Amino acid sequence: MFAAIMCGGSGTRFWPASRRQRPKQFLNITGKGPMVVDTCDRLTPLIADDRVILILGKDHREEARTLFKGRNVHILAEPVGRNTAPCMGLGALYAQHLGSQEPVAFLPADHFISNPEAFLKDLESAGKLAAQGGIVTLGIVPTRPETGYGYIRKTQDKTGSDVANAYKVSAFVEKPDVQKAHEYLNSGDYYWNAGIFVATPKTILTEIGTQLPDLHEGLGRVAAALGTDRFEAEFKGAYENMESISFDYGIMENTRQPVYVIPSDCGWSDVGSWESLYELRGSERDKDWNLTEGDTLVIDCEKSFVSSQSNRLVACLGLKECLVVDTGDTVLVADLSQSQNIRKIVDRLKETGKDTFL
Amino acid sequence: MFAAIMCGGSGTRFWPASRRQRPKQFLNITGKGPMVVDTCDRLTPLIADDRVILILGKDHREEARTLFKGRNVHILAEPVGRNTAPCMGLGALYAQHLGSQEPVAFLPADHFISNPEAFLKDLESAGKLAAQGGIVTLGIVPTRPETGYGYIRKTQDKTGSDVANAYKVSAFVEKPDVQKAHEYLNSGDYYWNAGIFVATPKTILTEIGTQLPDLHEGLGRVAAALGTDRFEAEFKGAYENMESISFDYGIMENTRQPVYVIPSDCGWSDVGSWESLYELRGSERDKDWNLTEGDTLVIDCEKSFVSSQSNRLVACLGLKECLVVDTGDTVLVADLSQSQNIRKIVDRLKETGKDTFL
Repeated sequence: MFAAIMCGGSGTRFWPASRRQRPKQFLNITGKGPMVVDTCDRLTPLIADDRVILILGKDHREEARTLFKGRNVHILAEPVGRNTAPCMGLGALYAQHLGSQEPVAFLPADHFISNPEAFLKDLESAGKLAAQGGIVTLGIVPTRPETGYGYIRKTQDKTGSDVANAYKVSAFVEKPDVQKAHEYLNSGDYYWNAGIFVATPKTILTEIGTQLPDLHEGLGRVAAALGTDRFEAEFKGAYENMESISFDYGIMENTRQPVYVIPSDCGWSDVGSWESLYELRGSERDKDWNLTEGDTLVIDCEKSFVSSQSNRLVACLGLKECLVVDTGDTVLVADLSQSQNIRKIVDRLKETGKDTFL
Repeated sequence: MFAAIMCGGSGTRFWPASRRQRPKQFLNITGKGPMVVDTCDRLTPLIADDRVILILGKDHREEARTLFKGRNVHILAEPVGRNTAPCMGLGALYAQHLGSQEPVAFLPADHFISNPEAFLKDLESAGKLAAQGGIVTLGIVPTRPETGYGYIRKTQDKTGSDVANAYKVSAFVEKPDVQKAHEYLNSGDYYWNAGIFVATPKTILTEIGTQLPDLHEGLGRVAAALGTDRFEAEFKGAYENMESISFDYGIMENTRQPVYVIPSDCGWSDVGSWESLYELRGSERDKDWNLTEGDTLVIDCEKSFVSSQSNRLVACLGLKECLVVDTGDTVLVADLSQSQNIRKIVDRLKETGKDTFL
């Protein structure tokens, strides 16, 4: 089994810690090291480094080389970002180039998993099933009526359950409203879509050939140039001409492949905001539910997340459910429950040309 | 008429802007320049610079010399702080030394006055009355049931009102509880005690001689050495032996001098907290009642005071009634309504030996 770890994404949600040059997946926000390294490390018992392909933006190649120094993971730097369909196609063809038709697990680089053993067990099952054909997803067993994620609806068809605890998928559904989220949670038929897919290179590339022929042609140019001295130029030329499109939208919506979901109860989180990070790190909170790191002084505060990431003192008095992040050149102060709106700040910085803070 | 501007006080209430080396009275927090300069400037139409005596701590002498460069105010640096009774005694004897028995207005250096014309008119009246003997205070006409100030209760005895709109004082009363504060406000007989006194040097020194003979003796040593080369040594020796005591407690409580109050409706504020500064600068607030200065970005916030006093960006999202002050080496985030408790932070810094932030 191979793994393609997808490290794209600009990660504005963790501003000011995340910046263009240092997006979320390269930050150590969970305390387990840079997320991309954590993602790779948790695979090790199942997938050795030389079967791991990191796909990232060219601006982050050097950072990745530094982080993975001395490890023989494969690093592919996309000339431009083109969303997940090209990225997964690239992962598939590169796994093929490495001489394998074994299934590839396509994994986002910036997710957290509290129970890696359960995760690997489910991933291994997914690999076994995918080896027989079709596209397998891990469906995260929901623990709350979350409106921020898409869902996967299962059928009762247990085809494939001889090799894995799998169900045929009935539909991928959009982010629900609160009422629907409650229905989904209570029905037991829905899982969170974590964007984790497992399939053989052949399955992926065949599907791209059927549904996205232009992408297939571009990937063909890249594949033909692999290992030659015209690779960089072909890679760049092909990628720049590719349509930016997601795998969910470009492939999964209309695929004729069998699609399976394996329910996974592995303590997954997409760590999508400062608030979710605050929840994730609950065990580090003090008796007043404050989570602090760095040089901080917190008096009469509760349920607040205070992070001093420079040598500066951050002093807080009388705060409730507040987020304070000091990165040395800037400080963010926000209502913790509004941390999903941090994009508004990043957008304003773009509008006003304050690029040094992006 | 002379003025003695009292510039002592460590000013922890405006931490982190105020520090040991740069207390409130040397800060430009109201937008009118350093408060001590503003205090002096507003006197100019009535009291020329060469009749102004600044009394401050020796650590701040150089700062004062810089601020008043080219102006012939008198600067006296106390070797150690000994509260207001010694300070006012020193002011009185220094005015005497300058060859005058005219009244001296004793004024705190860190108050704000929005209507200096009204203030000067009342101060001039106080001077006329004080020239005839007794101790005259300006009583600030209260505008709210404030529990943070002491009050002055007037009698209906209008002795002295031929030279000033003055009343005999019935009592100086302590900070009231909320109910009493309402009673005081409604009665019309109470004024805020702003710590502003006017009296001749002779009156002040006679009272000190009667009530605080040790202080009187010490001041005598200082007076005798004025203009000689043993002044610094005598000043230091005498001051170090003085009791630290306030004029209110040491003199006013038991004085046999006639005591008058002149009601003053001059837009006075002691600017006692970040919150009161926020109120004071109300006209600078935006439509959401946010007051911002420096490099700030404020989104979805209301009734907040955000001050970036360095070249760092302070970004705020979704805050309500919040105070953020960034001074470069530290940042304070507080509930604006709790800004009177900032002493708690300063105390903690002292306890933990973080002297660089004091």
